[in-house]
Amino acid sequence: MQHGGPLTHVHANRSRFVSELMEFVRIPSVSAQPKHAGDVKDCAVWLANHLRRVGLHHVAIITTRGHPLVYADWLGFSDRPTLLIYGHYDVQPVDPLDEWQSPPFEPVIRDNYLYGRGASDDKSQMFALIKALEAYIQTGGMLPLNVKCLFEGEEEIGSPNLTSFIEAKRDSLSADAVVISDTRIAAPDRPAITYALRGALSLELEVIGPRHDLHSGTFSGAIHNPLQALCEILCSLHDRNGRVAIPGFYDTVRQPNVEEREYLRRTGPTDAEILHNGESARGWGESGFTLYERTVLRPALTVSGITGGYQGIIPARALAKLSFRLVPDQDPSQVDTLFRDHIVKVTPRTVHSVVRTSSGAKPVLMSVNHPANRAAMVAYYRGFGTWPVFLRSGGTIPEVNTFQETLSVPVVLMGFASPDDRAHAPNEKFHLPNFFNGIATCIAFLQELGTCHVDVLSSFPSKRDAEVGTIRRCQWLSKHVAVAERGP
Amino acid sequence: MQHGGPLTHVHANRSRFVSELMEFVRIPSVSAQPKHAGDVKDCAVWLANHLRRVGLHHVAIITTRGHPLVYADWLGFSDRPTLLIYGHYDVQPVDPLDEWQSPPFEPVIRDNYLYGRGASDDKSQMFALIKALEAYIQTGGMLPLNVKCLFEGEEEIGSPNLTSFIEAKRDSLSADAVVISDTRIAAPDRPAITYALRGALSLELEVIGPRHDLHSGTFSGAIHNPLQALCEILCSLHDRNGRVAIPGFYDTVRQPNVEEREYLRRTGPTDAEILHNGESARGWGESGFTLYERTVLRPALTVSGITGGYQGIIPARALAKLSFRLVPDQDPSQVDTLFRDHIVKVTPRTVHSVVRTSSGAKPVLMSVNHPANRAAMVAYYRGFGTWPVFLRSGGTIPEVNTFQETLSVPVVLMGFASPDDRAHAPNEKFHLPNFFNGIATCIAFLQELGTCHVDVLSSFPSKRDAEVGTIRRCQWLSKHVAVAERGP
Repeated sequence: MQHGGPLTHVHANRSRFVSELMEFVRIPSVSAQPKHAGDVKDCAVWLANHLRRVGLHHVAIITTRGHPLVYADWLGFSDRPTLLIYGHYDVQPVDPLDEWQSPPFEPVIRDNYLYGRGASDDKSQMFALIKALEAYIQTGGMLPLNVKCLFEGEEEIGSPNLTSFIEAKRDSLSADAVVISDTRIAAPDRPAITYALRGALSLELEVIGPRHDLHSGTFSGAIHNPLQALCEILCSLHDRNGRVAIPGFYDTVRQPNVEEREYLRRTGPTDAEILHNGESARGWGESGFTLYERTVLRPALTVSGITGGYQGIIPARALAKLSFRLVPDQDPSQVDTLFRDHIVKVTPRTVHSVVRTSSGAKPVLMSVNHPANRAAMVAYYRGFGTWPVFLRSGGTIPEVNTFQETLSVPVVLMGFASPDDRAHAPNEKFHLPNFFNGIATCIAFLQELGTCHVDVLSSFPSKRDAEVGTIRRCQWLSKHVAVAERGP
Repeated sequence: MQHGGPLTHVHANRSRFVSELMEFVRIPSVSAQPKHAGDVKDCAVWLANHLRRVGLHHVAIITTRGHPLVYADWLGFSDRPTLLIYGHYDVQPVDPLDEWQSPPFEPVIRDNYLYGRGASDDKSQMFALIKALEAYIQTGGMLPLNVKCLFEGEEEIGSPNLTSFIEAKRDSLSADAVVISDTRIAAPDRPAITYALRGALSLELEVIGPRHDLHSGTFSGAIHNPLQALCEILCSLHDRNGRVAIPGFYDTVRQPNVEEREYLRRTGPTDAEILHNGESARGWGESGFTLYERTVLRPALTVSGITGGYQGIIPARALAKLSFRLVPDQDPSQVDTLFRDHIVKVTPRTVHSVVRTSSGAKPVLMSVNHPANRAAMVAYYRGFGTWPVFLRSGGTIPEVNTFQETLSVPVVLMGFASPDDRAHAPNEKFHLPNFFNGIATCIAFLQELGTCHVDVLSSFPSKRDAEVGTIRRCQWLSKHVAVAERGP
């Protein structure tokens, strides 16, 4: 990059970038809690103003039935590819608040880490992309390709309004590739491109017993306690070996591919690393798989919350929040049916159960040999000084499937988070060197993708037929790993 | 009762009594919630002022390490018995608030029922005793016997400071009998004296996993979820037939006595009545016992609350509140040990468990043929126009054991609540006719007990040796029931 170019701009503005990022993290844009609705809106306004200052055009706050979207673009070329940048400015709730070492919305820097809710998921990461745009526009007055930005305020609540928006605006959102920075690298010196995401299915299971809470002295021993019945039902969802015990649940799970498992074993985290990141002493789950495989190749079911009762009573009802993570070729609506059938079967006659489906997302696999992913590889090499590995993620980004299916474009998951960032947990943090390496990676990615011919990009299918994709990917991965081991 | 006597006073002041009671219920004296500490104190002040107005002496608010006690007395006789009146002015929390048809601390009357938290447990009942005292003092200037009143603000949290107070003030609290109005009658036309209470043991079980909440996408399938482990542990506490599955739990449970079961069957509620009162469609629990027996003759374990997690996470920890109800000859501290041993055995190696004991109370049996209980029988006959039955209660009044053991005096459980009053639940209510019949019963009880010779009262053991007590009681019950069927 020449003197006075984008990287020089970044270097000269490092401290301003960090203070802007802290401003962004300071806004408590918690999408799940109605009390924060005004803050989410304020965050959208802050973001829109920032995109205007960066130099983007057509900046707009788009109202939805829920929290707003923020759109901006720069469309200076007729003959270069168009990149759609997606990110989300909303964050998870902060409970349990008392476990935070510093208040979640008063960002602070300790030991080169920025602490605060949303620091990792997703504010720092989407901000790295924005700062890359700024670096081009404010040094050369232009970007190396066309860019459309779409930032969402409802990712943490399952993006209830995004799909319909994308479907309605299919034409104006058309692009040659989508990039999302909302995933992890393996370590600061080990960048990574995510090529698979688990799907998700979120449900509530409510068990209802007596019409009102009952005095436990007067009734205990004679009335089935809904909280206890809920526990009994929840216990029926796993066998003693950590496998999900819902009949039919594994029927559509794709058989693990030997070559891919070999690649994952070589490049992915070890059991010890996962336990370290998860601050846990012991692993758990399906035998025959490494912890990494259990979190990315295999589906899972988590009881993520239970509420019911207080003290001295038999509660009238008890509620569990459940979240499935699904893998190809499981389908959320099929799993929903299997779950409901199972609940009907295991609910004792003394209570009744109600199942409410909150949201679903299909699992996705990306074509790793798409030119957009190759551009990302080169970009990481420039930004981090080392070749990236390809990772499967256990998480879910529901909109990836929407982009693949509705816009028919490849999605590049070019994230900068660390495995120990504590996304969704107290003391969420982001490693500031990753922020700056991330900006450099984004700068290189825009450059690389800008040099691709539109025709070349569109000649690759955006999404491989799953089985073929896996085989080809594994062949390509082998070559790629060989290249990576040799260097660029 | 002569013209101008206590009953006339009650009749002339009915509407004032009800509005005073509503004032009392209006004070949100929730002992379990620190935010209501000021309200509990206000309630003690209101009560003390009221006792002064009634005409009692030595009215005092006694501070404790928790909520205050309120004391008052009238000690005009040297040759008549002394009755210690105990009640509690604190109430249960109101959650779930949205199920109340009218705000819990804005008492209202609908269909002859007073609605409000504490209306049944215990404000109306203790107020009936207070109004009986007023009726004597304000008509004749004196009571028919000596009275000491001790009202507590911590009953709903297990009376943590009462025992030590009673032990320290053993001499000044000495009495010939204790009366407590905090139990149920069978129906408005079927008054009842409670002669047995279950004991209690309240515990918290916390299951601890990873050091922080974890993102369920990243870790689910590989880390044992503490909420799920908690459910697994809780499921191990009962067998499939509703029996507690903790080894040794039933070892000290007294074999049911055939004559007593026969009496309970004849006089107690039917399964259908219990289900009606519990607003439940079906019964549950230990086979071989009626629902009434399951709640009074048999011990039970209730999961009264679970908290843990939120959404999208594997929570770091999960908490259950458990409450045992115990029967003779179970001992709370022995059960505590059995429970802890069992938890150690069933906790999987992937998590750890912490057990915290909140409070314990021994089960109690009262001597039904004590003259104080016979005085109560006569009093009910006068107040309600019909003879009372003797009931076992599934509930716990921890201080009964304290009075029996520390003061060595008989305790009379002369309650006026209805089985469908929804104590501890939303829309708690109290049947106003029971309030006035209760006042009349208290007036008669004071009169009856006042005519007993102190020597006769003290010649009966305050508490029977349990086994002997049961046999004698059953013989006596048979006679009593024969009398009751014939009339007075």
